[in-house]
Amino acid sequence: MPTVAGIIIGNEILTGKFADLNGPHLIARARALGADLRRIVTIADDPDAIADEVARCAASADHVITSGGVGPTHDDVTLEGVARGFGLPLVREPSLESLLTGYGLTTPHALRMAEIPLGSHLIHGEPNRFPVVRCRNVWILPGVPRLFERKLALVEPHLRGELVTARRLVTYDDESGIAARLQAVQDRYPTVDIGSYPRFEGGRAHVILTLESRDVGALERATAELAGLLGVPAPALP
Amino acid sequence: MPTVAGIIIGNEILTGKFADLNGPHLIARARALGADLRRIVTIADDPDAIADEVARCAASADHVITSGGVGPTHDDVTLEGVARGFGLPLVREPSLESLLTGYGLTTPHALRMAEIPLGSHLIHGEPNRFPVVRCRNVWILPGVPRLFERKLALVEPHLRGELVTARRLVTYDDESGIAARLQAVQDRYPTVDIGSYPRFEGGRAHVILTLESRDVGALERATAELAGLLGVPAPALP
Repeated sequence: MPTVAGIIIGNEILTGKFADLNGPHLIARARALGADLRRIVTIADDPDAIADEVARCAASADHVITSGGVGPTHDDVTLEGVARGFGLPLVREPSLESLLTGYGLTTPHALRMAEIPLGSHLIHGEPNRFPVVRCRNVWILPGVPRLFERKLALVEPHLRGELVTARRLVTYDDESGIAARLQAVQDRYPTVDIGSYPRFEGGRAHVILTLESRDVGALERATAELAGLLGVPAPALP
Repeated sequence: MPTVAGIIIGNEILTGKFADLNGPHLIARARALGADLRRIVTIADDPDAIADEVARCAASADHVITSGGVGPTHDDVTLEGVARGFGLPLVREPSLESLLTGYGLTTPHALRMAEIPLGSHLIHGEPNRFPVVRCRNVWILPGVPRLFERKLALVEPHLRGELVTARRLVTYDDESGIAARLQAVQDRYPTVDIGSYPRFEGGRAHVILTLESRDVGALERATAELAGLLGVPAPALP
């Protein structure tokens, strides 16, 4: 399955000026596509921090998606950070320069958007729109949420894997009392991922148990077995 | 100012089964306290990933706050990950063991919650409640949102710094056209952090400009100067 890491770049998120919408969108899309999202990290508009994180994520995930820092202003330093992360120079890309000047964007600040890491690929979506820049396995997306969503759609064909199926049980026993039974079922079904989440909403303490797998047969057996051990109803199959 | 990194531990976040509430809460509290939040990273329930991230964050921030993975079930591996991150053994802490057995929690799974990295400190809040475990500069908090908030309150006295003040301008010019003026003001006021955020809400493209600083005099001068250069109203002082 394709593994994915997300890097959300922006002082505005870390300082609480804007809520991060792109991380949750990436989570939802990775899940819908069957990709394995391994980490999401939010960092500041700092080329060294970006370089460090890009190098690390690119070495451990099949695909890295960055969000933010690709405009013409002084706080847009993602292209520089990605280049530095791979030890690559930034080079002026003629087709991007033409696209920008065609829009009347001819200032030195605007043309920084045409300076991309050497060897990057351009992925074109709609005609005359700015393409997605891909440097090795890093896809560089804008931070404006509606643009992030639109550009992520161009990346999504690369993120498709086998879908994960999930089941959920609820018990009013406490976690300590059920831990050994959870462990036993987890040990017996290594391809099923079992999670245990105590919650207090609704006034009565309960534990939400989630089971998920790409092996639906194992998932159904593990769910039935755990439901039996806990004395709770197994969820109806969809 | 104290620098802070947050590590949100949980498969349930990365797979979209639960939305992360603790990251946004940490962002809001760091801001309210005057701390500098440097990064927030969400990773899976994997001791090696936790160890790696803890080692990295602990070396670069004054305080590291972890969320999640501290209960009695098989998917609770944060204490093990933190210990591994520092190359420390886990040791049974007698006072925690007493607390747990006092609640009737005597199974081997329950008593895993008393196994903490060697040399950890316990920070007690309410009597007879489980304390916060601190290992070096890493504060280990539970992931259940209302417990995370309650325990973070015990950490907050250590996160206090000088408060940041912020101002906001809005322009209908595009970013490329204003980038040089933003750069000029940013260069003149290095203690002021200027951010530029294109948005499309409300049907008309605009750019939200944020200025913030701990130096209120510089902030007011930079804001007035930028407002003048852009021909937009300066915000009324609070």
